[in-house]
Amino acid sequence: MSEPMPVANRAKGGWISYRPQIRALDCTIRDGGLINDHAFDDELVRRVYGTCVAAGVDYVEFGYKASKRIFAPSKYGRWKFCSEDDIRRIVEPKNEAIRVTVMADADRTDYHTDILPREKSVVDCVRVACYIHQIPAALDMLKDAHDKGYETMMQLMAVSIVSERDLHHALELAAESPADAVYIVDSFGALYSEQVRDLTRMYLRALAGTNKEVGFHAHNNQQLAFANTVEAIIAGANRVDATINGIGRGAGNCPMELLIGFLHNPKFELRPVLECCRDVFVPLRQTMEWGYSIPYAITGQLNRHPIQAINMRAGQSPDDYVAFYDQMVQEES
Amino acid sequence: MSEPMPVANRAKGGWISYRPQIRALDCTIRDGGLINDHAFDDELVRRVYGTCVAAGVDYVEFGYKASKRIFAPSKYGRWKFCSEDDIRRIVEPKNEAIRVTVMADADRTDYHTDILPREKSVVDCVRVACYIHQIPAALDMLKDAHDKGYETMMQLMAVSIVSERDLHHALELAAESPADAVYIVDSFGALYSEQVRDLTRMYLRALAGTNKEVGFHAHNNQQLAFANTVEAIIAGANRVDATINGIGRGAGNCPMELLIGFLHNPKFELRPVLECCRDVFVPLRQTMEWGYSIPYAITGQLNRHPIQAINMRAGQSPDDYVAFYDQMVQEES
Repeated sequence: MSEPMPVANRAKGGWISYRPQIRALDCTIRDGGLINDHAFDDELVRRVYGTCVAAGVDYVEFGYKASKRIFAPSKYGRWKFCSEDDIRRIVEPKNEAIRVTVMADADRTDYHTDILPREKSVVDCVRVACYIHQIPAALDMLKDAHDKGYETMMQLMAVSIVSERDLHHALELAAESPADAVYIVDSFGALYSEQVRDLTRMYLRALAGTNKEVGFHAHNNQQLAFANTVEAIIAGANRVDATINGIGRGAGNCPMELLIGFLHNPKFELRPVLECCRDVFVPLRQTMEWGYSIPYAITGQLNRHPIQAINMRAGQSPDDYVAFYDQMVQEES
Repeated sequence: MSEPMPVANRAKGGWISYRPQIRALDCTIRDGGLINDHAFDDELVRRVYGTCVAAGVDYVEFGYKASKRIFAPSKYGRWKFCSEDDIRRIVEPKNEAIRVTVMADADRTDYHTDILPREKSVVDCVRVACYIHQIPAALDMLKDAHDKGYETMMQLMAVSIVSERDLHHALELAAESPADAVYIVDSFGALYSEQVRDLTRMYLRALAGTNKEVGFHAHNNQQLAFANTVEAIIAGANRVDATINGIGRGAGNCPMELLIGFLHNPKFELRPVLECCRDVFVPLRQTMEWGYSIPYAITGQLNRHPIQAINMRAGQSPDDYVAFYDQMVQEES
């Protein structure tokens, strides 16, 4: 849709070398928490944190700073709210090699009060998530967090249903914001590689000269989470999200064990991630379901939110793909 | 590694339109048969065949024409040998809209006797599979099948361990052969998208002016089977393999249900594939294992044959990823 931009695939072309600017963010606890209402116990969270440190991952994200007025603490696990004490219990004594992030949803966060001044917190970075109509709220949250001293990132969700015109406008505003990175978020797992490449180039152009990085957050509805993350990297994205064993709501996310295999930067270590998969995630699959299955492929192909597929997988007929497909096609407006 | 070649992504750029020259080949029974020694019963094979017809798939492959001198018929299912009678029992009365293929392995096929003259067979196309050192044998087999009246395709396996110099030579020979298509076969599931794109362009250049098509056969070791198939299509490949529900030895293949979602040619129908997944493949997973798991990711990352991962998954410690990783790294020569 537009002229190619000269970006090196890695440091130089091809896959032998690596680009040192690439930073991996682990959102195992945050996105995995969408499956169990953020109720992971400390032992598991501590193990994931230790795995990320050992693996050389750059950022680790524990959950949301959700408003306790909107979400009753009695109904959710603690990682829905990420209190300062809860995070400190996991990360202290703090390893300065890895940065701690929390996610703050637009219109669902009491950010003026719940996000502390940076010097009073072990959190390093606030990631503000919003839909296209929430951009003004997100910009105010980004300013608040930036003024408090945090690194900030902007996560514009469901980009696959945003018009190009609106996206250009959103990126103009993002370019003027204090966000240190702006993410392409494929909430529906709907994007094909050509779209990922074009979007990455569009974001890079819109943010050129601002020192802001472009990020990519994938979902695995069409078994494209890892592939699209690689595509975004090749096109120039330097911030990428992944989760251990690909855990995440619905079809899950880009698996960290695949991403590290691709990122040839020797600072990354695969073995700790494999240990964590073996010790924590194999048993976890007995009680939690995530990963590719056909209903997620259908919502991805149709560029729809996966919620109906998630409900279908949790219901009485999790394998009646035909009935689900018929329902989805009937509902297409 | 070389200058880009001007090929349209689809009919014209982008993903809205489609390229009518693209032909999908279903190798569910052939590649799935590598899991169960080709012992699928007629009912399942007939259902898969009917699904392919209803879905608008262009080719369907049932198995190998293996030598009965080398492989004892008492030890394998019938789709290891694909006798004329066995195929006729499935496909007759024959639907002319779908072409029937069999695979013939170099050095493992008594092709002079076991491949009948075309006019005596319901088979339409012979696919000759070989490793790089078997090219002369493969060329003789291709000539034999072509002279007997068949459409032919050449499958050069394990391309990820073939040197560029050898590959250029092999493609020169392929260009002079009677093969109607020449496939890139990622036997180890090791290729990343950049490599798929470069290989596809290399094949297209080598075969330019011959009217031969380039094909792509993926494996899902790194969750890249579908993504790489799309990449090959974008780069100009017009023959692509897939299997229903991604069945295939080890990590499996490109899932037909994903491929059809991407190929916007309205002749393809997703619904029959979903029916077959629900009715046949969900129950089949109770007794057969296929699809992504971490040991396959490790052999894919290391560009190794998946056989040790397959054995590990079938052994006593199918989830001890760390021990497997250590073993693989120790063995790297």
